[in-house]
Amino acid sequence: MIAEKMKPLMANNSAIRTMFEEGDKMRAEHGAENVYDFSLGNPDAPVPSEIKQAIIDILNEEDPVTLHGYMSNAGFEDVRESIAQSLNRRFGTSFGSGNILMTVGAASGLNVALKTILNPGEEVIIFAPYFLEYNWYVDNYDGKVVQAPTDKNTFYPDLESFEKLITDKTRVVLLNTPNNPTGVIYKEDTIKKIAEILERKQKELGRTIFIISDEPYRELAYGGIEVPYVTKYYNNTIVAYSYSKSLSLPGERIGYLVIPSELEDSEFVFDTASNANRIIGCVNAPSLQQKVIGRCVDVQVDLDYYDRNRTSLYEGLKACGFDCVKPEGAFYMFLKSPVEDENDFCAAAKKYNILMVPGTAFACPGYVRLAYCVSHETIVNSMDGFRNLAKEYGLL
Amino acid sequence: MIAEKMKPLMANNSAIRTMFEEGDKMRAEHGAENVYDFSLGNPDAPVPSEIKQAIIDILNEEDPVTLHGYMSNAGFEDVRESIAQSLNRRFGTSFGSGNILMTVGAASGLNVALKTILNPGEEVIIFAPYFLEYNWYVDNYDGKVVQAPTDKNTFYPDLESFEKLITDKTRVVLLNTPNNPTGVIYKEDTIKKIAEILERKQKELGRTIFIISDEPYRELAYGGIEVPYVTKYYNNTIVAYSYSKSLSLPGERIGYLVIPSELEDSEFVFDTASNANRIIGCVNAPSLQQKVIGRCVDVQVDLDYYDRNRTSLYEGLKACGFDCVKPEGAFYMFLKSPVEDENDFCAAAKKYNILMVPGTAFACPGYVRLAYCVSHETIVNSMDGFRNLAKEYGLL
Repeated sequence: MIAEKMKPLMANNSAIRTMFEEGDKMRAEHGAENVYDFSLGNPDAPVPSEIKQAIIDILNEEDPVTLHGYMSNAGFEDVRESIAQSLNRRFGTSFGSGNILMTVGAASGLNVALKTILNPGEEVIIFAPYFLEYNWYVDNYDGKVVQAPTDKNTFYPDLESFEKLITDKTRVVLLNTPNNPTGVIYKEDTIKKIAEILERKQKELGRTIFIISDEPYRELAYGGIEVPYVTKYYNNTIVAYSYSKSLSLPGERIGYLVIPSELEDSEFVFDTASNANRIIGCVNAPSLQQKVIGRCVDVQVDLDYYDRNRTSLYEGLKACGFDCVKPEGAFYMFLKSPVEDENDFCAAAKKYNILMVPGTAFACPGYVRLAYCVSHETIVNSMDGFRNLAKEYGLL
Repeated sequence: MIAEKMKPLMANNSAIRTMFEEGDKMRAEHGAENVYDFSLGNPDAPVPSEIKQAIIDILNEEDPVTLHGYMSNAGFEDVRESIAQSLNRRFGTSFGSGNILMTVGAASGLNVALKTILNPGEEVIIFAPYFLEYNWYVDNYDGKVVQAPTDKNTFYPDLESFEKLITDKTRVVLLNTPNNPTGVIYKEDTIKKIAEILERKQKELGRTIFIISDEPYRELAYGGIEVPYVTKYYNNTIVAYSYSKSLSLPGERIGYLVIPSELEDSEFVFDTASNANRIIGCVNAPSLQQKVIGRCVDVQVDLDYYDRNRTSLYEGLKACGFDCVKPEGAFYMFLKSPVEDENDFCAAAKKYNILMVPGTAFACPGYVRLAYCVSHETIVNSMDGFRNLAKEYGLL
């Protein structure tokens, strides 16, 4: 009954479902407070109070037919200008409304970008480990994902291998920093080197290669670490952004693409992307939420909410003897499994009501992902279980 | 710079842009009140006051992290149940929450449905005239649109020709009633006959053929005319719905799919469609608007707003001697061009500041579409121009 292309996806889906069902079963059996579920990347920091106030103000001040109505497929002009100015203030860029295209979250933004530029058979290079849903998006346009390696001690890109993977089929390099699942942030030096390689390869191959920078975690960077703004280093960069994490609004599906003026044929690419937004069926980003963003463009969730979890979980796990790169951003930690098959490790953790996602789900076996967007109590209370788990593997 | 597939679409887009720019130029030159723009299908009936109140109540009553957060890709369970019950009350169906999948408007719903069931090379039959953006959606999945004829005196399907077009490549019949651009509503008799043909063809060809019923105009039916609920007549029907027109919320991108239990493998198809919602990048329908719908499930715009326009425009045009099927639903009128090339007719109308869309844009040359979702004043004031136009063609 379903399309052939959906069949393998649905088979994979039933594995994920089994994991969720196990979690629900555990919660029913032991009580939700006794289950330490680190499997879900679901933002849970409080929604800033400015959001509610902005919605009420908008409802009181704006004409309803315009507020809830169609606008340009790229979004409300005033909102796009506010976002551009905020980026310029914060990152020293020089965007205008004509560089900002409002999208139904970053996932849809990535689809708009790929629909706009990717041809069947062309390659998208992604550094592993990575969020595997990227595979779906690339497959939507019949492209091919090429995995590039990272250094397992740092999760930084292995640039020598990367350069060798660039061919006359390469169309996009998809970056994600701060990274899901490792929490690693690429510093300026790395971005510069990637840009240098791509500039050289563009000339050598005589073709345009884009960076798509997926940045839903941009604001979740701890200890004042800077997240370089990629468009400043490489002209043919498209940024995909979402307010899901910075404002805890993942259900609202609101984000944007940045298509900088420095990108080749920028205006035409922007127009094409606006049409792609329509063609893939989104038409435009939800209108009320666009207006909310226009008024809350510099608001963000309390970073300390996640940072406290990061510190407690990292220090707790290190004290147990586990091996992990300390995350600098996002709300994930990527732990080395003490045994080769991380599925065994995940299974052992379940005995202590601890749920983690196997690294295989991020194209990186031998590791597990812990999402620390949970209550601080969950982390504190999980530590007995982690200590027992560490003892099992002779780490304590 | 852009994907090959986007190139013809962008060429077509520049023609539409030219039309809009002409309209803007006219408005700047003659004043907006002196331009009679019937080219845009942009709902303009007042948004019901219940919407604002529902948003405020929701903000005051619900937990923000849950309200703006992720939910199942199919949408909030309680909202889906409310919609199911409303449909059951109004149309005598027997849906539950498990049959309703919340989507980013109907355009996205159609994409979710096609992603779920359509394979490359398979055919989608659509009765012409029709909304040409359907072509894009079918092309997104590498399907092929097959145009089926209608009777030009009634715009009802020519069922004999339709039956002959069904082959071993047919996967979907896409219906749109009330219809854009004709305003025609298919009565029970027509739906029954289409269902009979499809039942017979499914057996004969040994394959599943779906109806996708695109129903954003369902509630815009005038004079108490009934719009048959297609799932009651044919099991393998998927309904795509949007609140864009019934609540004047087109910018909010909120709608749903109905996947009835009678559809073959219904639960699996529903699960697959929920995943398709994620895979195409929407993830879920905007969360706050879902909750708004949950509370406003039986609310609708004032039908008289459009009905008054319908009557005035139809009677005015008939009095001028123009030829037109009286629309029973939606907010469009499909006028026969008094000359073969309707582009000449559109160009002549511009002299009187009247803007209409050539029928070629709906796969039906020789006609023009007038969208009467405009102020009543616009219609009244346009009549002098229409009379002059009629005189030019010897109709008055």
